Amino acid sequence: MEYHIEGRDHNARAGVLGTDHGPIHSPAFMPVGTQASVKALSPRELVEIQTSVILCNTYHLYLRPGADVIRKSGGLHRFMGWDKPILTDSGGYQVFSLSALRKIEEEGVQFRSHVDGSVHRFTPESVVDIQRQLGSDIVMVLDECTPYPCTEEYARNSNDLTVRWATRSRSRFAGSGPLYQHNQSLFAIVQGSVYPEIRERSVRALIEMDFDGYGIGGLAVGEPADAMMEIVSLCAGLLPEEKPRYLMGVGTPANLLDGIERGIDLFDCVLPTRNGRNGMIFTRTGPINLMNARYKFDLSPIDEACGCYSCGHFTRAYLRHLFQTKEILGLRLATLHNLYYYQQLMRDARNAIMDARFAPWKEEQLQLLDRQESMYA
Amino acid sequence: MEYHIEGRDHNARAGVLGTDHGPIHSPAFMPVGTQASVKALSPRELVEIQTSVILCNTYHLYLRPGADVIRKSGGLHRFMGWDKPILTDSGGYQVFSLSALRKIEEEGVQFRSHVDGSVHRFTPESVVDIQRQLGSDIVMVLDECTPYPCTEEYARNSNDLTVRWATRSRSRFAGSGPLYQHNQSLFAIVQGSVYPEIRERSVRALIEMDFDGYGIGGLAVGEPADAMMEIVSLCAGLLPEEKPRYLMGVGTPANLLDGIERGIDLFDCVLPTRNGRNGMIFTRTGPINLMNARYKFDLSPIDEACGCYSCGHFTRAYLRHLFQTKEILGLRLATLHNLYYYQQLMRDARNAIMDARFAPWKEEQLQLLDRQESMYA
Repeated sequence: MEYHIEGRDHNARAGVLGTDHGPIHSPAFMPVGTQASVKALSPRELVEIQTSVILCNTYHLYLRPGADVIRKSGGLHRFMGWDKPILTDSGGYQVFSLSALRKIEEEGVQFRSHVDGSVHRFTPESVVDIQRQLGSDIVMVLDECTPYPCTEEYARNSNDLTVRWATRSRSRFAGSGPLYQHNQSLFAIVQGSVYPEIRERSVRALIEMDFDGYGIGGLAVGEPADAMMEIVSLCAGLLPEEKPRYLMGVGTPANLLDGIERGIDLFDCVLPTRNGRNGMIFTRTGPINLMNARYKFDLSPIDEACGCYSCGHFTRAYLRHLFQTKEILGLRLATLHNLYYYQQLMRDARNAIMDARFAPWKEEQLQLLDRQESMYA
Repeated sequence: MEYHIEGRDHNARAGVLGTDHGPIHSPAFMPVGTQASVKALSPRELVEIQTSVILCNTYHLYLRPGADVIRKSGGLHRFMGWDKPILTDSGGYQVFSLSALRKIEEEGVQFRSHVDGSVHRFTPESVVDIQRQLGSDIVMVLDECTPYPCTEEYARNSNDLTVRWATRSRSRFAGSGPLYQHNQSLFAIVQGSVYPEIRERSVRALIEMDFDGYGIGGLAVGEPADAMMEIVSLCAGLLPEEKPRYLMGVGTPANLLDGIERGIDLFDCVLPTRNGRNGMIFTRTGPINLMNARYKFDLSPIDEACGCYSCGHFTRAYLRHLFQTKEILGLRLATLHNLYYYQQLMRDARNAIMDARFAPWKEEQLQLLDRQESMYA
């Protein structure tokens, strides 16, 4: 994978990841399209809000519709009508968060499907093979995502397994080729919970294998925000400058700015989509909840400063009505706006880095947001 | 209301209804936007599929968000971001089909809201007033929609009441003016169940009052299709040539063609939207259900001959997956396709009338459809 840094401001980087489906200008936020659909949106709407990469879930797509359907369809891009880059996660996180009766062994992990209870097994090799069939631009290795809290001993043993799995993933990936007319890249995942020593051990082992990029996993799973950012700082400081870094499953707008400041390039999170479907709207001055009675007669757009379709055509009063009456259009307009907000935040962050004014710009954003993070839960 | 007939083919008519929000080329199908939203679609998608008029429900909008919110928003067009014509029904049908404890009196009808059980009353006058506040282009009078079956005596008394209510509606409408910068028209509603004598009595009483157009109500409520079309023929034969005719709540593609043949100009029905949300797709060769396992690997578009966004970008296999996994995009793509199909059917019908080849064209369509009406239920 080609990765160029186009601008730096202290630890923050403005980069470009090259893929055969086009460039990803970083820092970048990846909307989550778990089941080959970014919930409530169409591919052309994602293009309209300048989305340059999305994330899909190996675990979900393996269960439904099955890798065979996607292979027969000519890969995930064709299947879902999306011709820009796709990153697929490895299923590690989902196996540990969604499925029942998981059993971790050296060979891999056995689990029961959350859909129908059927028993399946993922190995580092099978997960690479599935992602070859999906044809994602960026493939993630199978990892064990440690819960929070977990003991230092558990975290060390778990990370050692994740590293051994990474070795096997690397070798399966090298020994196989893409099934479609485009190249794929492989990212490893740093684990180690909140223990600096284990995180360092994880990074050092993985960079020795020279992956195309590095995910930082096992965060945003319940640990305090300060602990998360300490680990991010540590990992980013140890990871090679010339490779992209991806903070998995993070986060709020403030989290993203904190991550960018520490040298993170890629993010994904369900917050803008999931919270949008609950009527929670991100604005430059903090989140609002459209179900609130105060918006009944509010004829202003969701966010005066926003350039999205929702804000350009509809009032808060109308959106509140759509949510009150459970109209699908409400979910759509809120999701579209929230993702536009996230994409705009990333574009603004990139410009601030290029202009070497990231720190003051970030401070201004945080003051505007007033850190009303409590509403995001 | 201006109404011009541009072409005739036996009883079928190709017309243009003029409104201050633009022309409606008839025959026309009105997508149903019950609660100020055509379920799952955005206004720009409705424009894309060449929708020239939609229907909204007075009953639902009166309850939520309330006429006051819509008035404060500058009318229904502005509220919902739709600047083409809107017809609002009177609420008569909904009071009789959705609400509990309705009590019909000479003055009007008392009912309990299906949302919260609160008690309300509609009178012919209040329903005109509400539609003035909504600012719909076409206003419908309050009527009693008779159930099927009902006795001849019930139908006669009910229709006499509906006619008296029409007189009061006419007079309230004439004595009031529009609240926004556009004109409104008033349509009456013919009732009389399946009894020709009462239907005739209804039509004669209503045309004497000279409305802008005439709805034919109380059909598609359970009576046999033949009985429905006999009543349609009868009413269309009695209604004035120079006024638009609207067959309310109808129907399947075959129903629409049958109605057009008998001289109907306007239709509305929830079938394309509601059935679309259940995975039922209209095609030129009859309906298909996307949940069917046979489509798991089907890489063809929903309908090869269709020009809609859904058919141009996605396979049956993908749509089936979206329905299997309950993704909102499935509801959207199916609805968009179904409404496109209905709009295209109306455009084709209009062209066939203009070219004086409606009957053979209709026969060809019905043969293609194979009258697989059983799947529409």
